[in-house]
Amino acid sequence: MKVLIVFAHPERNSLNGSLLDVAVAELQAQGHEVKVSDLYAMHWKAIVDRDDFPDLSVDERLKVSSASAHGFTTGGLTEDVKAEQEKLLWADTVILQFPLWWFAMPAILKGWVDRVFACGFAYGVGEHSEHRWGDRYGEGVMAGKRAMLIVIAGGWPEHYSERGINGQIDDLLFPINHGILFYPGFTVLPSFVAYKVDRMGEVEFDTLAEKLRQRMRTLETAKPILYRLQNGGDYVIPTMQVKPGLEKAGTVRFALHVRQASPE
Amino acid sequence: MKVLIVFAHPERNSLNGSLLDVAVAELQAQGHEVKVSDLYAMHWKAIVDRDDFPDLSVDERLKVSSASAHGFTTGGLTEDVKAEQEKLLWADTVILQFPLWWFAMPAILKGWVDRVFACGFAYGVGEHSEHRWGDRYGEGVMAGKRAMLIVIAGGWPEHYSERGINGQIDDLLFPINHGILFYPGFTVLPSFVAYKVDRMGEVEFDTLAEKLRQRMRTLETAKPILYRLQNGGDYVIPTMQVKPGLEKAGTVRFALHVRQASPE
Repeated sequence: MKVLIVFAHPERNSLNGSLLDVAVAELQAQGHEVKVSDLYAMHWKAIVDRDDFPDLSVDERLKVSSASAHGFTTGGLTEDVKAEQEKLLWADTVILQFPLWWFAMPAILKGWVDRVFACGFAYGVGEHSEHRWGDRYGEGVMAGKRAMLIVIAGGWPEHYSERGINGQIDDLLFPINHGILFYPGFTVLPSFVAYKVDRMGEVEFDTLAEKLRQRMRTLETAKPILYRLQNGGDYVIPTMQVKPGLEKAGTVRFALHVRQASPE
Repeated sequence: MKVLIVFAHPERNSLNGSLLDVAVAELQAQGHEVKVSDLYAMHWKAIVDRDDFPDLSVDERLKVSSASAHGFTTGGLTEDVKAEQEKLLWADTVILQFPLWWFAMPAILKGWVDRVFACGFAYGVGEHSEHRWGDRYGEGVMAGKRAMLIVIAGGWPEHYSERGINGQIDDLLFPINHGILFYPGFTVLPSFVAYKVDRMGEVEFDTLAEKLRQRMRTLETAKPILYRLQNGGDYVIPTMQVKPGLEKAGTVRFALHVRQASPE
C-alpha cells in the first residue's frame, strides 16, 4: 500500500510526534510505502488568498470556487498545492493526524484542506444537472482510496461519549469524516482517537502505541463507516434528503447518513 | 451595545463583504458601537507556533496549553493576540462571520480561535478539582456576553435540513456554537445562515439583507440557544455526562445538551 500521512502539530517532540513515529514504523514494517506531509515542517501556507491563483489579474474579484476551478483545469495552481494533490493521487490510503483543538482540526490542517481540495479535484466533479448533483459523497476523484483520522484529544473519553458534555466524538468528527473525506470519494475508516493524553505515563503510552499499531496493521481490512452514497438511490434528487423509511426507527441527525450493515 | 464582528473572507468585494456592510450599517443605525476584525485585511497569522510564545526558550519543547497559560498570565503573548483579547473584553456581543468551507470555518478564522482563545482566558479558567471541572460551558471570562454566527453557505437549505445530505446545519455548527462560543461563557444566539448564494440576484440579496438587518435589530432581545450549564446540576461530575432522564424522550446526540424551554 501507499500511505500518505498529513501531520499537523507544531512540536515534533510531542506525544503527537511519537504517535506519528509509531504509525510510520509499523506501516513500513508491514512493507507499505509511506509519505508524510508534516505541515509545520513544510511551513505550509494556511490561508486561501489571491496568491493561490497567480493567473487572477489584480483588478479581478477573487471568487474562490471559480478561481480554484480555473487554476485546477489550466495547471495554474501553486506548486505547493499541486505537490499535495500529486501525493493524494499517489496514495491509496490517506491519514490525517492532528490534535483536537476547539473540537476541530488546527488551522494549518484546515488550510491544507481549503487549499488542496480544489474545485474540479475534490468538489465540482462530475455531471451537475436536475438528475445528478455531481460525483460526491462516495464518488469522485478519491473513490477507491481509504482514509482515516488519528485524533489526539485532551479530555476524558466519558466527556466525548454518548451523553458526554463535549458531544459524542463521532458526531464531532462527522463534518471531517463525511464532509471532507467521504465527500471527494474516500472510503472512511473509523477514527483512531487518543484521550486523556495530558499526563500520560510510559505504560499508558505503550498501550496506546500498541492500539495504534494494531490499527495500522488492519488498514486494508478494517470495515469502513457505511455512509450512504449520494447517487446510490438513498437520497431524493435534487433536494438530497434521505428517502423516508430507509433508517432504523429512532435514527436521527448525522446517524441518518450511515447505512445499516448488510448481512454477510 | 458594543459589538465586535470577526470577519473571515479573502474578498471584501463579495456577497460576504456586502452582508458585513449591511450588518455594520444597521448596528450603527441602532446606536451601537461596532468594531470589525477583518482578518484578511489585518494579515492575521493563522497558525499556532513557537513565535506565539516569545518567552519560550529555543531548546524548550512547545507544549501549547502551558505556553499559552504562561504567556497569558505574564502578559507575554504577542501584541496581535492581546489586541483581539482586548476587543473581546470590550464587546458585549461578538459575531463571527464566515463562508462555510468544507462544513467548517476558513483556516484564518480557526487560527484566530486557536491563538486568541488562550489558556486562562478561554479555557483552563476556574477551579479544577474532583467537584468542579473549571468555569466553562456557560461560565468563564465571556459570561454575560452574547455571541452569534453569520454563515454563508453555498448549498441549498434542503441539503442542510433534518434529513439533508450535508447533515443538519445546527449540528454542523454545534462544535462552534457549543464548543467554541458557549465553552468560554458566551450566551449563544441562533445562527444567521444564508444559503444558495452562488447566483444571487438583486431581489434575493435585498430579501436576505433585510433578514440580516432584522437579526441585527434583535441582538439584545433574541432568545438564546438553551445549552445546559456544566455547573448547573445537569451533568454528573467528573464524567460530565447528562444525568439520565433530563431530556425529552427520544432526544439524542448534540440535542441532549439543549435544555427544554422553561415555561414563561
